[in-house]
Amino acid sequence: MKNVKLTIEYEGTNYSGWQNQENAITIQQVIEKAIYDTSKEHTRLIGSGRTDKGVHALGLVANFFTNCTIPGEKFKFVLNNVLPVDITIIESEEVSLDFHARYSALKKRYVYKIYNDKKYRPLFRNYSYHYKHDLDIEKMKEASKYLLGTHDFCSFMGRKTNVYTTIRTIYSIDIEKDDNFIIMTFEGDSFLKNMVRIIVGTLINAGNKKMQVEEMQEILDGKDRRLAGRTAPPQGLYLEKVFYD
Amino acid sequence: MKNVKLTIEYEGTNYSGWQNQENAITIQQVIEKAIYDTSKEHTRLIGSGRTDKGVHALGLVANFFTNCTIPGEKFKFVLNNVLPVDITIIESEEVSLDFHARYSALKKRYVYKIYNDKKYRPLFRNYSYHYKHDLDIEKMKEASKYLLGTHDFCSFMGRKTNVYTTIRTIYSIDIEKDDNFIIMTFEGDSFLKNMVRIIVGTLINAGNKKMQVEEMQEILDGKDRRLAGRTAPPQGLYLEKVFYD
Repeated sequence: MKNVKLTIEYEGTNYSGWQNQENAITIQQVIEKAIYDTSKEHTRLIGSGRTDKGVHALGLVANFFTNCTIPGEKFKFVLNNVLPVDITIIESEEVSLDFHARYSALKKRYVYKIYNDKKYRPLFRNYSYHYKHDLDIEKMKEASKYLLGTHDFCSFMGRKTNVYTTIRTIYSIDIEKDDNFIIMTFEGDSFLKNMVRIIVGTLINAGNKKMQVEEMQEILDGKDRRLAGRTAPPQGLYLEKVFYD
Repeated sequence: MKNVKLTIEYEGTNYSGWQNQENAITIQQVIEKAIYDTSKEHTRLIGSGRTDKGVHALGLVANFFTNCTIPGEKFKFVLNNVLPVDITIIESEEVSLDFHARYSALKKRYVYKIYNDKKYRPLFRNYSYHYKHDLDIEKMKEASKYLLGTHDFCSFMGRKTNVYTTIRTIYSIDIEKDDNFIIMTFEGDSFLKNMVRIIVGTLINAGNKKMQVEEMQEILDGKDRRLAGRTAPPQGLYLEKVFYD
Protein backbone atom coordinates (compact mmCIF):
# COMPACT_ATOMS: atom_id res chain seq x y z
CA MET A 1 0.00 0.00 0.00
CA LYS A 2 1.18 3.53 -0.67
CA ASN A 3 0.18 6.98 0.49
CA VAL A 4 -0.31 9.56 -2.28
CA LYS A 5 -0.27 13.31 -1.66
CA LEU A 6 -2.20 15.55 -4.07
CA THR A 7 -1.90 19.33 -4.40
CA ILE A 8 -5.16 20.60 -5.85
CA GLU A 9 -6.35 23.81 -7.49
CA TYR A 10 -10.03 24.48 -8.08
CA GLU A 11 -12.67 27.07 -8.67
CA GLY A 12 -15.26 26.57 -5.96
CA THR A 13 -18.13 28.37 -7.72
CA ASN A 14 -19.97 25.29 -8.90
CA TYR A 15 -19.44 23.03 -5.88
CA SER A 16 -20.94 22.73 -2.42
CA GLY A 17 -17.48 23.07 -0.91
CA TRP A 18 -14.77 20.50 -0.32
CA GLN A 19 -16.34 18.03 2.05
CA ASN A 20 -18.69 15.23 1.06
CA GLN A 21 -22.33 15.66 1.98
CA GLU A 22 -25.62 14.25 0.82
CA ASN A 23 -27.50 15.67 -2.15
CA ALA A 24 -24.72 18.01 -3.20
CA ILE A 25 -21.70 17.81 -5.47
CA THR A 26 -18.47 18.43 -3.62
CA ILE A 27 -14.86 18.65 -4.72
CA GLN A 28 -13.83 15.74 -2.50
CA GLN A 29 -16.47 13.52 -4.09
CA VAL A 30 -15.49 14.46 -7.65
CA ILE A 31 -11.82 13.68 -7.01
CA GLU A 32 -12.64 10.43 -5.19
CA LYS A 33 -14.68 9.41 -8.21
CA ALA A 34 -11.77 10.32 -10.51
CA ILE A 35 -9.46 8.12 -8.39
CA TYR A 36 -11.95 5.27 -8.65
CA ASP A 37 -12.33 5.74 -12.41
CA THR A 38 -8.59 5.52 -12.93
CA SER A 39 -7.50 3.02 -10.24
CA LYS A 40 -10.73 1.02 -9.71
CA GLU A 41 -10.19 1.39 -5.99
CA HIS A 42 -12.58 3.07 -3.60
CA THR A 43 -10.59 5.51 -1.50
CA ARG A 44 -11.22 8.17 1.05
CA LEU A 45 -9.45 11.48 0.51
CA ILE A 46 -8.06 13.18 3.61
CA GLY A 47 -8.11 16.93 3.02
CA SER A 48 -5.89 19.53 4.68
CA GLY A 49 -9.10 21.31 5.63
CA ARG A 50 -12.53 22.15 4.31
CA THR A 51 -13.50 24.97 2.02
CA ASP A 52 -17.06 26.30 1.87
CA LYS A 53 -19.28 26.56 -1.17
CA GLY A 54 -17.83 29.18 -3.53
CA VAL A 55 -14.38 29.30 -1.90
CA HIS A 56 -11.43 28.63 -4.21
CA ALA A 57 -8.18 26.77 -3.65
CA LEU A 58 -4.84 27.31 -5.31
CA GLY A 59 -3.09 24.60 -3.32
CA LEU A 60 -5.32 22.46 -1.14
CA VAL A 61 -3.51 19.28 -0.11
CA ALA A 62 -5.12 15.87 0.27
CA ASN A 63 -3.80 12.33 0.64
CA PHE A 64 -5.16 8.83 0.09
CA PHE A 65 -4.01 5.25 0.45
CA THR A 66 -4.01 2.92 -2.52
CA ASN A 67 -2.80 -0.51 -3.58
CA CYS A 68 -2.92 0.28 -7.27
CA THR A 69 0.20 0.21 -9.42
CA ILE A 70 0.00 3.78 -10.75
CA PRO A 71 3.16 5.56 -9.48
CA GLY A 72 2.50 8.50 -7.16
CA GLU A 73 3.83 11.13 -9.56
CA LYS A 74 1.66 9.78 -12.41
CA PHE A 75 -1.62 10.32 -10.61
CA LYS A 76 -1.46 13.97 -11.61
CA PHE A 77 -1.76 13.04 -15.28
CA VAL A 78 -4.32 10.24 -15.03
CA LEU A 79 -6.58 12.25 -12.73
CA ASN A 80 -6.38 15.43 -14.80
CA ASN A 81 -7.53 13.37 -17.78
CA VAL A 82 -10.85 12.68 -16.11
CA LEU A 83 -11.37 15.67 -13.82
CA PRO A 84 -13.72 18.51 -14.85
CA VAL A 85 -12.26 21.79 -16.12
CA ASP A 86 -12.64 23.61 -12.80
CA ILE A 87 -10.52 21.15 -10.78
CA THR A 88 -6.90 20.28 -11.49
CA ILE A 89 -4.14 18.34 -9.76
CA ILE A 90 -1.05 20.54 -9.65
CA GLU A 91 1.22 17.90 -8.16
CA SER A 92 1.09 14.28 -7.02
CA GLU A 93 3.71 12.26 -5.19
CA GLU A 94 4.13 9.21 -3.01
CA VAL A 95 4.78 10.16 0.61
CA SER A 96 5.54 8.21 3.77
CA LEU A 97 2.64 6.26 5.23
CA ASP A 98 2.41 8.52 8.26
CA PHE A 99 1.78 11.67 6.21
CA HIS A 100 -1.69 13.06 7.00
CA ALA A 101 -2.86 16.10 5.00
CA ARG A 102 -4.53 17.64 8.03
CA TYR A 103 -2.49 16.55 11.04
CA SER A 104 0.88 17.01 9.34
CA ALA A 105 0.09 20.56 8.19
CA LEU A 106 2.20 23.20 9.95
CA LYS A 107 0.84 26.38 8.46
CA LYS A 108 -1.83 27.59 6.05
CA ARG A 109 -2.03 30.66 3.89
CA TYR A 110 -5.35 32.15 2.83
CA VAL A 111 -5.93 35.14 0.55
CA TYR A 112 -9.08 37.26 0.55
CA LYS A 113 -9.81 39.65 -2.34
CA ILE A 114 -12.09 42.64 -2.01
CA TYR A 115 -13.01 44.49 -5.19
CA ASN A 116 -13.42 47.98 -3.74
CA ASP A 117 -15.15 50.16 -6.28
CA LYS A 118 -18.56 51.69 -6.91
CA LYS A 119 -18.92 49.86 -10.23
CA TYR A 120 -20.12 46.30 -10.40
CA ARG A 121 -17.90 44.12 -12.60
CA PRO A 122 -19.53 40.93 -13.96
CA LEU A 123 -16.15 39.33 -14.69
CA PHE A 124 -15.01 39.63 -11.08
CA ARG A 125 -18.22 38.44 -9.42
CA ASN A 126 -17.11 34.87 -8.62
CA TYR A 127 -13.54 35.79 -7.68
CA SER A 128 -13.80 38.69 -5.25
CA TYR A 129 -16.14 40.42 -2.83
CA HIS A 130 -17.58 43.56 -4.37
CA TYR A 131 -17.56 46.18 -1.64
CA LYS A 132 -18.75 49.59 -2.84
CA HIS A 133 -17.95 51.91 0.05
CA ASP A 134 -14.68 53.57 0.97
CA LEU A 135 -12.32 51.58 3.15
CA ASP A 136 -9.48 53.07 5.17
CA ILE A 137 -6.77 50.49 4.73
CA GLU A 138 -4.57 51.97 7.44
CA LYS A 139 -7.37 51.42 9.97
CA MET A 140 -7.77 47.85 8.74
CA LYS A 141 -4.05 47.23 9.16
CA GLU A 142 -4.12 48.67 12.69
CA ALA A 143 -7.11 46.55 13.65
CA SER A 144 -5.50 43.41 12.23
CA LYS A 145 -2.54 43.76 14.60
CA TYR A 146 -4.74 42.78 17.57
CA LEU A 147 -5.25 39.37 16.00
CA LEU A 148 -1.61 38.44 15.55
CA GLY A 149 -0.27 35.71 17.81
CA THR A 150 -2.04 33.06 19.85
CA HIS A 151 -5.59 33.81 20.97
CA ASP A 152 -8.92 32.21 21.64
CA PHE A 153 -10.68 33.01 18.35
CA CYS A 154 -14.09 31.91 19.60
CA SER A 155 -15.64 35.23 18.47
CA PHE A 156 -14.46 34.51 14.93
CA MET A 157 -15.91 31.05 14.51
CA GLY A 158 -18.96 30.07 12.47
CA ARG A 159 -21.83 28.33 14.24
CA LYS A 160 -22.46 24.59 14.48
CA THR A 161 -18.82 23.73 14.92
CA ASN A 162 -17.46 21.04 17.15
CA VAL A 163 -13.80 21.62 17.89
CA TYR A 164 -11.50 20.56 20.68
CA THR A 165 -10.13 24.07 21.11
CA THR A 166 -10.79 27.51 19.65
CA ILE A 167 -7.24 28.66 20.33
CA ARG A 168 -5.31 29.39 17.16
CA THR A 169 -2.15 31.23 16.17
CA ILE A 170 -2.06 33.82 13.40
CA TYR A 171 1.49 34.45 12.20
CA SER A 172 0.79 37.33 9.83
CA ILE A 173 -1.93 39.41 8.22
CA ASP A 174 -0.86 41.39 5.21
CA ILE A 175 -3.18 43.98 3.63
CA GLU A 176 -2.34 45.58 0.30
CA LYS A 177 -4.06 47.71 -2.29
CA ASP A 178 -3.62 46.71 -5.91
CA ASP A 179 -5.58 49.01 -8.20
CA ASN A 180 -9.19 48.65 -7.04
CA PHE A 181 -8.51 45.44 -5.19
CA ILE A 182 -7.68 45.01 -1.54
CA ILE A 183 -5.68 41.82 -1.13
CA MET A 184 -5.50 40.37 2.38
CA THR A 185 -3.14 37.50 3.13
CA PHE A 186 -3.46 35.44 6.32
CA GLU A 187 -0.97 32.92 7.62
CA GLY A 188 -1.68 30.80 10.67
CA ASP A 189 -1.29 27.35 12.17
CA SER A 190 -4.86 26.53 11.26
CA PHE A 191 -8.17 28.33 11.04
CA LEU A 192 -11.60 27.73 12.55
CA LYS A 193 -14.75 27.43 10.47
CA ASN A 194 -15.41 30.74 8.65
CA MET A 195 -12.60 32.35 10.66
CA VAL A 196 -10.93 34.19 7.78
CA ARG A 197 -14.26 35.41 6.43
CA ILE A 198 -15.41 36.67 9.85
CA ILE A 199 -12.05 38.41 10.38
CA VAL A 200 -12.45 40.08 6.95
CA GLY A 201 -15.99 41.19 7.83
CA THR A 202 -14.69 42.66 11.09
CA LEU A 203 -11.72 44.39 9.45
CA ILE A 204 -14.18 45.93 6.97
CA ASN A 205 -16.01 47.45 9.97
CA ALA A 206 -12.70 49.00 11.04
CA GLY A 207 -12.11 50.23 7.48
CA ASN A 208 -15.52 51.87 7.09
CA LYS A 209 -15.39 53.19 10.68
CA LYS A 210 -18.40 51.29 11.97
CA MET A 211 -16.06 50.35 14.78
CA GLN A 212 -12.99 51.79 16.44
CA VAL A 213 -9.73 49.98 15.86
CA GLU A 214 -9.37 49.31 19.62
CA GLU A 215 -12.69 47.46 19.74
CA MET A 216 -10.91 44.52 18.16
CA GLN A 217 -9.47 43.70 21.60
CA GLU A 218 -12.96 43.66 23.13
CA ILE A 219 -14.23 41.39 20.40
CA LEU A 220 -11.40 38.94 21.06
CA ASP A 221 -11.87 39.11 24.83
CA GLY A 222 -15.67 38.84 24.63
CA LYS A 223 -15.54 35.34 23.10
CA ASP A 224 -18.90 35.86 21.49
CA ARG A 225 -19.56 35.51 17.76
CA ARG A 226 -22.11 38.32 17.87
CA LEU A 227 -19.44 40.87 18.75
CA ALA A 228 -17.50 40.36 15.49
CA GLY A 229 -18.48 41.56 12.02
CA ARG A 230 -20.41 39.76 9.32
CA THR A 231 -19.04 36.71 7.56
CA ALA A 232 -17.60 38.09 4.31
CA PRO A 233 -18.89 36.19 1.24
CA PRO A 234 -17.08 33.04 0.08
CA GLN A 235 -16.12 34.02 -3.48
CA GLY A 236 -13.33 36.35 -2.28
CA LEU A 237 -11.55 33.57 -0.38
CA TYR A 238 -8.67 31.45 -1.67
CA LEU A 239 -6.85 28.70 0.22
CA GLU A 240 -3.47 29.51 -1.27
CA LYS A 241 -1.02 27.10 0.30
CA VAL A 242 -0.62 24.47 2.98
CA PHE A 243 2.86 24.12 4.48
CA TYR A 244 4.47 20.88 5.66
CA ASP A 245 7.88 19.96 6.99
CA MET B 1 -39.41 59.21 -29.12
CA LYS B 2 -35.89 59.11 -27.81
CA ASN B 3 -32.72 57.25 -28.65
CA VAL B 4 -30.92 55.64 -25.70
CA LYS B 5 -27.28 54.60 -25.79
CA LEU B 6 -26.13 51.79 -23.49
CA THR B 7 -22.54 50.85 -22.63
CA ILE B 8 -22.53 47.21 -21.62
CA GLU B 9 -20.13 44.89 -19.81
CA TYR B 10 -20.64 41.14 -19.79
CA GLU B 11 -19.06 37.78 -19.35
CA GLY B 12 -19.78 35.83 -22.52
CA THR B 13 -19.22 32.35 -21.06
CA ASN B 14 -22.86 31.41 -20.64
CA TYR B 15 -24.30 32.99 -23.79
CA SER B 16 -24.39 32.13 -27.46
CA GLY B 17 -22.82 35.46 -28.30
CA TRP B 18 -24.38 38.88 -28.72
CA GLN B 19 -26.74 38.47 -31.62
CA ASN B 20 -30.21 36.98 -31.44
CA GLN B 21 -30.66 33.53 -32.90
CA GLU B 22 -33.14 30.73 -32.53
CA ASN B 23 -32.86 28.15 -29.79
CA ALA B 24 -30.06 29.91 -27.98
CA ILE B 25 -29.78 32.52 -25.25
CA THR B 26 -27.96 35.62 -26.41
CA ILE B 27 -26.92 38.80 -24.69
CA GLN B 28 -28.99 40.96 -27.04
CA GLN B 29 -32.11 38.95 -26.24
CA VAL B 30 -31.57 39.13 -22.47
CA ILE B 31 -31.16 42.92 -22.56
CA GLU B 32 -34.13 43.37 -24.92
CA LYS B 33 -36.21 41.38 -22.45
CA ALA B 34 -34.92 43.55 -19.58
CA ILE B 35 -35.96 46.66 -21.53
CA TYR B 36 -39.39 45.16 -22.09
CA ASP B 37 -39.73 44.19 -18.43
CA THR B 38 -38.96 47.72 -17.30
CA SER B 39 -40.53 49.86 -20.05
CA LYS B 40 -43.25 47.50 -21.38
CA GLU B 41 -42.08 48.37 -24.88
CA HIS B 42 -40.75 45.90 -27.40
CA THR B 43 -37.52 47.29 -28.78
CA ARG B 44 -34.74 46.19 -31.03
CA LEU B 45 -31.20 46.78 -29.77
CA ILE B 46 -28.67 47.97 -32.33
CA GLY B 47 -25.27 46.69 -31.27
CA SER B 48 -21.89 48.19 -32.17
CA GLY B 49 -20.94 44.75 -33.43
CA ARG B 50 -21.35 41.09 -32.61
CA THR B 51 -19.38 39.02 -30.19
CA ASP B 52 -19.18 35.22 -30.51
CA LYS B 53 -20.09 32.67 -27.88
CA GLY B 54 -17.62 32.91 -25.00
CA VAL B 55 -16.25 36.35 -25.96
CA HIS B 56 -16.46 39.03 -23.27
CA ALA B 57 -17.19 42.74 -23.49
CA LEU B 58 -16.02 45.53 -21.21
CA GLY B 59 -17.72 48.24 -23.21
CA LEU B 60 -19.99 47.09 -26.01
CA VAL B 61 -22.29 49.90 -27.10
CA ALA B 62 -25.90 49.50 -28.21
CA ASN B 63 -28.78 51.86 -28.80
CA PHE B 64 -32.56 51.58 -28.94
CA PHE B 65 -35.55 53.83 -29.57
CA THR B 66 -38.27 54.18 -26.99
CA ASN B 67 -41.33 56.23 -26.15
CA CYS B 68 -41.28 55.40 -22.48
CA THR B 69 -40.83 58.10 -19.87
CA ILE B 70 -37.77 56.63 -18.14
CA PRO B 71 -34.98 59.21 -18.58
CA GLY B 72 -31.98 57.98 -20.57
CA GLU B 73 -29.55 58.12 -17.67
CA LYS B 74 -31.94 56.15 -15.42
CA PHE B 75 -32.04 53.10 -17.70
CA LYS B 76 -28.74 52.01 -16.21
CA PHE B 77 -30.36 51.54 -12.82
CA VAL B 78 -33.67 50.03 -13.88
CA LEU B 79 -32.02 47.57 -16.26
CA ASN B 80 -29.34 46.51 -13.77
CA ASN B 81 -32.13 45.68 -11.34
CA VAL B 82 -33.44 42.97 -13.64
CA LEU B 83 -30.35 41.84 -15.59
CA PRO B 84 -28.54 38.63 -14.61
CA VAL B 85 -25.24 38.83 -12.69
CA ASP B 86 -23.06 38.33 -15.76
CA ILE B 87 -24.40 41.37 -17.68
CA THR B 88 -24.33 44.95 -16.46
CA ILE B 89 -25.06 48.39 -17.92
CA ILE B 90 -22.09 50.64 -17.20
CA GLU B 91 -23.67 53.78 -18.61
CA SER B 92 -26.92 54.89 -20.21
CA GLU B 93 -27.75 58.22 -21.81
CA GLU B 94 -30.12 59.83 -24.25
CA VAL B 95 -28.39 60.61 -27.55
CA SER B 96 -29.45 62.34 -30.76
CA LEU B 97 -31.86 60.40 -32.94
CA ASP B 98 -29.25 59.88 -35.65
CA PHE B 99 -26.84 58.05 -33.36
CA HIS B 100 -26.36 54.45 -34.54
CA ALA B 101 -24.21 52.15 -32.39
CA ARG B 102 -22.67 50.48 -35.44
CA TYR B 103 -22.60 53.14 -38.17
CA SER B 104 -21.52 55.96 -35.86
CA ALA B 105 -18.61 53.97 -34.42
CA LEU B 106 -15.20 55.37 -35.42
CA LYS B 107 -12.85 52.93 -33.77
CA LYS B 108 -12.89 49.74 -31.74
CA ARG B 109 -10.45 48.31 -29.27
CA TYR B 110 -10.17 44.59 -28.62
CA VAL B 111 -7.93 42.85 -26.12
CA TYR B 112 -6.82 39.22 -26.39
CA LYS B 113 -5.29 37.43 -23.38
CA ILE B 114 -3.05 34.40 -23.73
CA TYR B 115 -2.13 32.56 -20.54
CA ASN B 116 1.29 31.29 -21.59
CA ASP B 117 2.42 28.67 -19.11
CA LYS B 118 2.78 24.89 -18.90
CA LYS B 119 0.36 24.69 -15.97
CA TYR B 120 -3.36 24.63 -16.48
CA ARG B 121 -5.18 27.10 -14.21
CA PRO B 122 -8.87 26.38 -13.60
CA LEU B 123 -9.56 29.95 -12.49
CA PHE B 124 -8.32 31.41 -15.78
CA ARG B 125 -10.07 28.96 -18.11
CA ASN B 126 -12.97 31.20 -19.15
CA TYR B 127 -10.91 34.40 -19.32
CA SER B 128 -7.83 33.58 -21.36
CA TYR B 129 -6.44 31.15 -23.92
CA HIS B 130 -4.16 28.64 -22.25
CA TYR B 131 -1.19 28.20 -24.59
CA LYS B 132 1.47 25.88 -23.17
CA HIS B 133 4.40 26.27 -25.56
CA ASP B 134 7.05 28.97 -25.66
CA LEU B 135 6.21 32.10 -27.62
CA ASP B 136 8.79 34.58 -28.91
CA ILE B 137 7.05 37.88 -28.34
CA GLU B 138 9.55 39.83 -30.42
CA LYS B 139 8.68 37.67 -33.44
CA MET B 140 4.99 38.24 -32.79
CA LYS B 141 5.54 42.00 -32.62
CA GLU B 142 7.48 41.94 -35.88
CA ALA B 143 4.80 39.89 -37.63
CA SER B 144 2.06 42.18 -36.36
CA LYS B 145 3.65 45.18 -38.13
CA TYR B 146 2.61 43.80 -41.54
CA LEU B 147 -1.02 44.14 -40.53
CA LEU B 148 -0.94 47.82 -39.58
CA GLY B 149 -2.72 50.21 -41.92
CA THR B 150 -5.36 49.61 -44.55
CA HIS B 151 -5.46 46.16 -46.17
CA ASP B 152 -7.81 43.60 -47.60
CA PHE B 153 -8.14 41.28 -44.59
CA CYS B 154 -9.91 38.56 -46.56
CA SER B 155 -7.43 35.94 -45.29
CA PHE B 156 -8.39 36.83 -41.73
CA MET B 157 -12.15 36.47 -42.02
CA GLY B 158 -14.29 33.61 -40.68
CA ARG B 159 -16.46 31.68 -43.13
CA LYS B 160 -20.11 32.26 -43.95
CA THR B 161 -19.80 36.00 -43.86
CA ASN B 162 -21.56 38.38 -46.14
CA VAL B 163 -19.84 41.77 -46.19
CA TYR B 164 -19.68 44.63 -48.65
CA THR B 165 -15.91 44.90 -48.36
CA THR B 166 -13.13 43.04 -46.58
CA ILE B 167 -10.91 46.13 -46.48
CA ARG B 168 -10.24 47.31 -42.97
CA THR B 169 -7.78 49.61 -41.21
CA ILE B 170 -5.81 48.54 -38.16
CA TYR B 171 -4.41 51.54 -36.28
CA SER B 172 -2.32 49.70 -33.72
CA ILE B 173 -1.41 46.29 -32.36
CA ASP B 174 0.24 46.30 -28.97
CA ILE B 175 1.72 43.11 -27.50
CA GLU B 176 2.91 42.99 -23.90
CA LYS B 177 3.95 40.38 -21.41
CA ASP B 178 2.49 40.64 -17.92
CA ASP B 179 3.71 37.81 -15.72
CA ASN B 180 2.55 34.64 -17.50
CA PHE B 181 0.03 36.51 -19.62
CA ILE B 182 0.52 37.89 -23.11
CA ILE B 183 -1.85 40.81 -23.57
CA MET B 184 -2.55 41.87 -27.15
CA THR B 185 -4.45 45.09 -27.83
CA PHE B 186 -5.92 45.81 -31.27
CA GLU B 187 -7.36 49.11 -32.45
CA GLY B 188 -9.02 49.46 -35.82
CA ASP B 189 -11.89 51.10 -37.66
CA SER B 190 -13.85 47.86 -37.52
CA PHE B 191 -13.12 44.16 -37.63
CA LEU B 192 -14.38 41.30 -39.79
CA LYS B 193 -15.94 38.16 -38.34
CA ASN B 194 -13.32 36.29 -36.26
CA MET B 195 -10.65 38.70 -37.51
CA VAL B 196 -8.95 39.35 -34.18
CA ARG B 197 -8.99 35.66 -33.27
CA ILE B 198 -7.52 34.62 -36.64
CA ILE B 199 -4.83 37.30 -36.35
CA VAL B 200 -3.99 36.00 -32.87
CA GLY B 201 -3.78 32.42 -34.20
CA THR B 202 -1.45 33.62 -36.95
CA LEU B 203 0.73 35.67 -34.61
CA ILE B 204 1.05 32.57 -32.42
CA ASN B 205 2.48 30.76 -35.47
CA ALA B 206 5.07 33.53 -35.73
CA GLY B 207 5.76 33.27 -31.99
CA ASN B 208 6.28 29.50 -31.99
CA LYS B 209 8.21 29.66 -35.30
CA LYS B 210 5.78 27.56 -37.33
CA MET B 211 6.06 30.43 -39.79
CA GLN B 212 8.59 33.08 -40.67
CA VAL B 213 7.70 36.64 -39.79
CA GLU B 214 7.83 37.67 -43.47
CA GLU B 215 5.17 35.14 -44.41
CA MET B 216 2.62 37.52 -42.95
CA GLN B 217 2.86 39.55 -46.16
CA GLU B 218 2.11 36.48 -48.28
CA ILE B 219 -0.87 35.62 -46.12
CA LEU B 220 -2.28 39.13 -46.59
CA ASP B 221 -1.59 39.11 -50.34
CA GLY B 222 -2.94 35.58 -50.84
CA LYS B 223 -6.48 36.58 -49.78
CA ASP B 224 -7.23 33.05 -48.73
CA ARG B 225 -8.40 32.08 -45.23
CA ARG B 226 -6.46 28.80 -45.44
CA LEU B 227 -3.14 30.68 -45.46
CA ALA B 228 -3.65 32.24 -42.05
CA GLY B 229 -3.42 30.50 -38.67
CA ARG B 230 -6.13 28.92 -36.60
CA THR B 231 -8.93 30.90 -35.04
CA ALA B 232 -7.79 31.42 -31.45
CA PRO B 233 -10.47 30.39 -28.94
CA PRO B 234 -13.13 32.90 -27.88
CA GLN B 235 -12.58 33.05 -24.12
CA GLY B 236 -9.38 35.11 -24.50
CA LEU B 237 -11.15 37.90 -26.39
CA TYR B 238 -12.57 41.10 -24.90
CA LEU B 239 -14.30 43.91 -26.78
CA GLU B 240 -12.84 46.66 -24.64
CA LYS B 241 -14.13 49.92 -26.05
CA VAL B 242 -16.03 51.45 -28.95
CA PHE B 243 -15.11 55.01 -29.85
CA TYR B 244 -17.51 57.69 -31.14
CA ASP B 245 -17.16 61.33 -31.95
